[in-house]
Amino acid sequence: MTRERLYLYDTTLRDGQQTQGVQFSTPEKIRIARALDALGVDYIEGGWPGANPTDSAFFDEAPRTRATLTAFGMTKRAGRSAENDDVLAAVTNAGTPAVCLVGKSDLFHVTDALGITADENLENIRASVAHLVSLGREALFDAEHFFDGHARDAGYATACLQASLEAGARWLVLCDTNGGTMPSRIGRTVEALIAAGIPGDRLGIHTHNDTEQAVAGSLAAVEAGARQVQGTLNGLGERCGNANLTALIPTLCLKQPYADAFETNVTAQALEGLTRTSRMLDDILNRVPQKQAAYVGASAFAHKAGLHASAIVKNPTTYEHIDPGLVGNSRIIPMSNQAGQSNLRRRLAEMGLEVAPDNPALPRILEVVKAREAEGYSYDTAQASFELLAREELGLLPEFFEVKRYRVTVERRKNKYNQMVSLSEAVVVVKVDGEKKLSVSESLDEAGSDRGPVNALSKALAKDLGPYQGVIDDMRLVDFKVRITQGGTEAVTRVIIDSADAQGRSWSTVGVSANIVDASFEALLDAVRWKLVRDREGA
Amino acid sequence: MTRERLYLYDTTLRDGQQTQGVQFSTPEKIRIARALDALGVDYIEGGWPGANPTDSAFFDEAPRTRATLTAFGMTKRAGRSAENDDVLAAVTNAGTPAVCLVGKSDLFHVTDALGITADENLENIRASVAHLVSLGREALFDAEHFFDGHARDAGYATACLQASLEAGARWLVLCDTNGGTMPSRIGRTVEALIAAGIPGDRLGIHTHNDTEQAVAGSLAAVEAGARQVQGTLNGLGERCGNANLTALIPTLCLKQPYADAFETNVTAQALEGLTRTSRMLDDILNRVPQKQAAYVGASAFAHKAGLHASAIVKNPTTYEHIDPGLVGNSRIIPMSNQAGQSNLRRRLAEMGLEVAPDNPALPRILEVVKAREAEGYSYDTAQASFELLAREELGLLPEFFEVKRYRVTVERRKNKYNQMVSLSEAVVVVKVDGEKKLSVSESLDEAGSDRGPVNALSKALAKDLGPYQGVIDDMRLVDFKVRITQGGTEAVTRVIIDSADAQGRSWSTVGVSANIVDASFEALLDAVRWKLVRDREGA
Repeated sequence: MTRERLYLYDTTLRDGQQTQGVQFSTPEKIRIARALDALGVDYIEGGWPGANPTDSAFFDEAPRTRATLTAFGMTKRAGRSAENDDVLAAVTNAGTPAVCLVGKSDLFHVTDALGITADENLENIRASVAHLVSLGREALFDAEHFFDGHARDAGYATACLQASLEAGARWLVLCDTNGGTMPSRIGRTVEALIAAGIPGDRLGIHTHNDTEQAVAGSLAAVEAGARQVQGTLNGLGERCGNANLTALIPTLCLKQPYADAFETNVTAQALEGLTRTSRMLDDILNRVPQKQAAYVGASAFAHKAGLHASAIVKNPTTYEHIDPGLVGNSRIIPMSNQAGQSNLRRRLAEMGLEVAPDNPALPRILEVVKAREAEGYSYDTAQASFELLAREELGLLPEFFEVKRYRVTVERRKNKYNQMVSLSEAVVVVKVDGEKKLSVSESLDEAGSDRGPVNALSKALAKDLGPYQGVIDDMRLVDFKVRITQGGTEAVTRVIIDSADAQGRSWSTVGVSANIVDASFEALLDAVRWKLVRDREGA
Repeated sequence: MTRERLYLYDTTLRDGQQTQGVQFSTPEKIRIARALDALGVDYIEGGWPGANPTDSAFFDEAPRTRATLTAFGMTKRAGRSAENDDVLAAVTNAGTPAVCLVGKSDLFHVTDALGITADENLENIRASVAHLVSLGREALFDAEHFFDGHARDAGYATACLQASLEAGARWLVLCDTNGGTMPSRIGRTVEALIAAGIPGDRLGIHTHNDTEQAVAGSLAAVEAGARQVQGTLNGLGERCGNANLTALIPTLCLKQPYADAFETNVTAQALEGLTRTSRMLDDILNRVPQKQAAYVGASAFAHKAGLHASAIVKNPTTYEHIDPGLVGNSRIIPMSNQAGQSNLRRRLAEMGLEVAPDNPALPRILEVVKAREAEGYSYDTAQASFELLAREELGLLPEFFEVKRYRVTVERRKNKYNQMVSLSEAVVVVKVDGEKKLSVSESLDEAGSDRGPVNALSKALAKDLGPYQGVIDDMRLVDFKVRITQGGTEAVTRVIIDSADAQGRSWSTVGVSANIVDASFEALLDAVRWKLVRDREGA
């Protein structure tokens, strides 16, 4: 059976950035673009060049991708030619192989919002698309408010699509801008367009989640004949978000009737990276991943009901609609279960710790993890802290040094030029091989700027560890994430520190306390201890 | 036009409690039941009496509700009569007017999981439902794995429904237990059942969100003829959750084709309580409300794109699918570097600052916002810090007090019992009305636990502000969020603080610095200054 080609268009970097509180830096955009390319989307919309400085910077530094890099903009304004529209020029100057231009297709918006005539709008669409084609670009026309426009005046909305089609647009994207159209109406509208002569393999669908149906609306359009699906990772986007590609991609690849009917650029191997990609984006945004997210959530394959959990052990298909491994996720069965321990042994083996099934430390480790997680710790990402915890219970953790005490001071006052300046100073006292060592550091970087109390503590801790000094000299702090979370009944601070060394190793550690400095120090200590363990093992 | 009656069935207290990490206490269940009743659902499923101690306790103390209180259980087991099944007896003994019993309708599960014959299962359904009817209860049959069963053997699945119908069940609930059925197939299956003679007004739909389509699946069933919709508040539930009633109810009440076709028990006034009800549940669960939630999320009507924000000012229907007030939510036009001057003036007007369009401060405010956002600030959520910034540029910000300097010390050492303990101490020096005031506080809470340096600073700052002391006495810190972000070329810390006061006001402020304590202090200062501005304006 030949499968029809279905195209995936990602707009995380453009529409996704419309999420309240989201503003990607250029390096973050590059990182996300690489992840999208690895996943196998066909188009990566990078932003609106000229409208936003980081968007322009991204196109200047854009990575080479297999996916078609696309710039977003709007159709030319009335009263000037496409060649002389400076807003459009900024978009085409980004030099991307494809350009997507938003334009009106709802007559009410044409006359009310733009204040131009129906014909002027058709001409703006036609001329803008023709201009892109003359520049050798792949042109996409994004028909704003398409479904509302079609309900109001089907003839005019269809004429807008026809104008862009005749001018040479590769794709006509049906945008449900307000997010209020029901999937059943989306499906019927796409059917009507195809009946009116618009080819389905030129139609794209762009939905929003305002009634929690963006995924269903996209699939209704595909079932009716549209062949391009737009969306964002984790459903980022304005208001309630865009159609969530993290849910749409596995549905299209794994579920019927789509899997047998369509071919996408997403390989089975790439799909296994989906959960990781979703978490990476949350990580960049410092968001707590949504446990209940379809396919990729930590709870997506968690079986709590007693009835379900016991049936799952007999036959996973009884309560799972797909195998969680296909999207890189995993099944969670209550800790008490036998499955908990075999899973733990597998994790320890991955760290090079082979543990016999009857080792009495195994249930103890599970208990400690459970108790710590109730306090606010999280070992999902902090693998190095988890390894230290397991080694402690297994009796495989030497006490390299002991921290006797520390003190850190943050001061802010006027300097002699009457400017407010701040300075942090840390004293750390450790006992190494029976010897007490006092170290003091301040938080100024090479430029003389204060980098804060955690920086000062980190430097003081690493200043003199006696015989271990050589081992930690090449350590550096790569990232530092702080979250307020629930520990028992009170809010506590969870700090995750990512470290790296000259041998190319990178590792993450966690600290939890109501005191943010203390939580940071705990994570720092774990980072140093893990490095000492690894270098000792390697020796 | 007569509208058909559509029934809403809530299972927050039963299936919702299958959410990972959720366990309601009896008083919490009572509070949720009252809220559901006020909202206007028709059925409240309270739990499984006998299976869970808090479920049994809830039925003992259940509040009087207009909604039909329903107990959940399972059909009798094979080899005993319904009258002699102790599991079923525990359910009926709860004395609820309605009882919903789950049973098998997928032949594979009958033979594989239960290990009984097809006929024995039909007899279990028939006898159990007849038993409920003989006790004078309204009977509901919950057909587990219905859609998978119907795909495998439509005849047998339909026979299970028929058996319960003939025995007197009021409702036959089609349950998509694994959450993997596409809405289009749900719709076709319901159509097939009605064509096979099962009345649509006896059919209910119970979906799960494993492909992010639980809402769409429920609506597909309604469009095909089902007349009872099951779900949970905020989409709680096992794995990815149940169909979200918080999204379904407004869609059924406000959106077409449903609003004109169906009548529910939810009044327009009750619907205005939807956002509050959703937040109340998050509050009970101590969860941060999902900003992007359909209808009720804080971002659901937030317009960030410059293009959208200026159109919204002219005509809200351009970018809103419903009036946010209908569900008790409100519109937000956040400040961000994508927003224009019209949106700025509107935002200022909402803060009580009427500014003429030609005021030269307007472009300056936009410039400062842009420059600050490049440094790592974010004003999307920190509206109070934005207001202070705007007032500063407009010359409308009094200097209430000046912070001359501060110093905070964090110390960790062994106490006399040889336990590691930490303590923070802060000194803040302010000048108020020409008078210098030194305040010192430590970070211990009432239980004697260290709450960290920001807590100590906050207390020291609020300790003595002279004439302003009375104004800030009722302020409290509600939430504290930290993220590492890019400020120019270096990583900086962004702190957002949510504050509230006794008058029910709540506001958010932001601080940015490489030094986390300093960033927190800046956000704290803004919080205090905003409160002083507001109380002065109010006077």
